[in-house]
Amino acid sequence: MSRIVRFHRIGGPEVLQIDDIDVPAPKAGDVQIRVKAIGLNRAEVMYRSGQYTHAPRFPAALGYEASGVVEAVGSGVQDFAPGDAVSVVPAFSFLDYGMYGELVNAPARAVVKNPAGLSFEEAAATWMQYATAWGALIEIGGLARGQAVLVGAASSSVGLAAIQIANSVGAVPIALTRSDSKRTALLEAGAKHVIAGGGDALTQQVRELTGGTGAQLAFDPVGGPEAAHQLRALAKQGMFVQYGALDTRDLSVPVMDLLSRHLSVRGYELFEITTDAAKLERAKRFITEGLASGALKPAIDRTFTLDEIVEAHRYMEAGAQVGKIVVTV
Amino acid sequence: MSRIVRFHRIGGPEVLQIDDIDVPAPKAGDVQIRVKAIGLNRAEVMYRSGQYTHAPRFPAALGYEASGVVEAVGSGVQDFAPGDAVSVVPAFSFLDYGMYGELVNAPARAVVKNPAGLSFEEAAATWMQYATAWGALIEIGGLARGQAVLVGAASSSVGLAAIQIANSVGAVPIALTRSDSKRTALLEAGAKHVIAGGGDALTQQVRELTGGTGAQLAFDPVGGPEAAHQLRALAKQGMFVQYGALDTRDLSVPVMDLLSRHLSVRGYELFEITTDAAKLERAKRFITEGLASGALKPAIDRTFTLDEIVEAHRYMEAGAQVGKIVVTV
Repeated sequence: MSRIVRFHRIGGPEVLQIDDIDVPAPKAGDVQIRVKAIGLNRAEVMYRSGQYTHAPRFPAALGYEASGVVEAVGSGVQDFAPGDAVSVVPAFSFLDYGMYGELVNAPARAVVKNPAGLSFEEAAATWMQYATAWGALIEIGGLARGQAVLVGAASSSVGLAAIQIANSVGAVPIALTRSDSKRTALLEAGAKHVIAGGGDALTQQVRELTGGTGAQLAFDPVGGPEAAHQLRALAKQGMFVQYGALDTRDLSVPVMDLLSRHLSVRGYELFEITTDAAKLERAKRFITEGLASGALKPAIDRTFTLDEIVEAHRYMEAGAQVGKIVVTV
Repeated sequence: MSRIVRFHRIGGPEVLQIDDIDVPAPKAGDVQIRVKAIGLNRAEVMYRSGQYTHAPRFPAALGYEASGVVEAVGSGVQDFAPGDAVSVVPAFSFLDYGMYGELVNAPARAVVKNPAGLSFEEAAATWMQYATAWGALIEIGGLARGQAVLVGAASSSVGLAAIQIANSVGAVPIALTRSDSKRTALLEAGAKHVIAGGGDALTQQVRELTGGTGAQLAFDPVGGPEAAHQLRALAKQGMFVQYGALDTRDLSVPVMDLLSRHLSVRGYELFEITTDAAKLERAKRFITEGLASGALKPAIDRTFTLDEIVEAHRYMEAGAQVGKIVVTV
C-alpha cells in the first residue's frame, strides 16, 4: 500500500486527502517512481477546483511534477532502470497519471534523468517552470541579446524561470507584479526592472525603460483586458505569448497597435514542447546546460511534507510565494 | 502642366479635385510614369477622410496603385527606360508620392514591369490585392493544400485575390460576407463556401464545413469583437491575420480557444512585404506565375474616368462592388 493524494469532489484545498492505495505495476511504456519530492503547480489548484481544461473523474489523482528513484519499469522501456534518479516532465493528462504520492507511474516519454548535482527538491522544481519559459521565450519568441521581455506574474516559479532564461541569453527581463511588496525579491531574483501595477502607466514605463523601442516579447499567464497595456508596450514585430488564463475574460487587443507594429498574440501550452520529441530534446539540452553552468537555479520558496498537502495548496492560493512550492515525501 | 487629383481639406469624396500642376522631373532613384490606369484602394478613402495611419499635409496627393508607361527616369535608375510598361506597388507614404494623376513620380523600388498579356487596367488592379493576400496566406500563414481559410470582406479586391490564391495552392477558401446579396458572385469568383453574417452561427458553420477541424487561417480586415467568432472557428495552431481596421474597437480574443488550440493573432501590413526586397521578389514571382497560368485574374468591378474621381470614391464607399474599382486616364 502507498499513500496517494486524491480528491473525491471538486472544492477547496480541504478536498485533498491521502488514500492508501495498491499502486499497480507499471504497464508497457511506463516507469514506476518512488517519489522524493513533488513540485506544485497552479494547474493542480485549477483542476482541483474544477477550472481546468478537463474535468476530473473521481477519485481523482493529480500532479504534474515529481522527482525520485525508479522502482520498476514496464515492458518496452529501454532508457531507465531501477535506481535511476529521475524527474517527471508535464506531458500527460491527470485523467491518466498523477504525481502526488509516494509511489507513482509515469509514461517513459515524460521521464528525464536528473542532471548531476541537483537535489530531488530542485529537480521537482525544474521542468515545468524552465520548459514552459524556454518554449515561449526561446523556441517561439526567439528572444535575443539586448531585447526586452515583459514577464507577467513574475514571482511565480515560471516567472522566475523566465527571468533566469532571459538573463542567460543576454536579454533584459522586466518583471511585472501587482504590488510593490515583491519588488526587492524580484530584483534579487535577476529582474533588470520591476513594474508594479498595470494600466497606461505600465505602457509608459516600458517605453521609458526601453528608450522608446518597446519590449520584443511579453510572457504572461493573466491576459484579459489588461493585456492591452502590455501590447501597447511592444516593439515592432513584438509578440505577446499567453500561457495561462488567470483572467478568463477575453483578451483586449488594440487594433492600431496590432497593425502598425505587426504584433502577434500567441496562445501557448507547455504540452506543445513536451509532447514533441525534437522540441523536448532541445528544451532538455538548454535547461541541463543552464543548470550545469549555474545560469539557471530553481528558486524554492518553501517546502511542505506530504501530510501538509492541504496547507501547501492553501499557501499557493494565498499567492505570497516567490518561487516554487515543493512537497517532500 | 498635368492633371493631378489632390485634396485641400479632410472630407467626403467631394474634397477631391483635379489641379493643373507642373510635375517636377524625377529625382534620383525615381521613375516618372505617364499613367494609363489607377487602382483605387480603401486606404485612400481613409486618408482623404482623416482616418489613416498618417495625417495629410495640404495640398495632398494620394494613390497607391497605377499602371502606365515610363516617361523619364531619375539618376541612378538602371532597371527602367522610357517606353516600358510598368505598374506601381504600394511601398511608400502618401506624404512622398501619390498615383492619382496623368503624370506621376514613383520610387523605382516600387515599380515593376507589367507581365505580358496584362492590360493597363488589370495591371493597376494587381499588386495591392495579390501582394497583400500573398503575404498573409503564403508568406506568413503558410497555407497548404486542403487547409481551409476564412476570407473576411470577401468581395473586396483583396478578398477576391485571397480566394484565387487559396485555390491556386489547393486550399479551401470560405468567403465571409455581411449579407446574402453577394453569395452567387462569390461562388462564381471561386469561393468554395460562402457564410453570410457573423456570430455563433459563423463558428458553427465553419466547424461543419471543415468536418469539425476548423479553418487553419483567417484573413480579415474587420476585427473588433466579431473576431472572436472567427477565432473560435480556427483549427489547432490556427492563425488570424488582420490586415485592416474596418472596426476600430479592440479585438476580442477568447482565451480558452487561444490557449487550448495554440492560436495566433497577427497584425499585418502590405508594407512588410513591399519594403523587403527578398519578400517582394518572392511575391512578384508567385503573382507573375499565377497571372501567366491564369490561376490569378484581377476582377475589375467597374471603371471610371479621371474626371469621375469623386464619383469613383463615392462608389467605393457605397460598398456594392465585387472586385477592383479602376480609373482610366
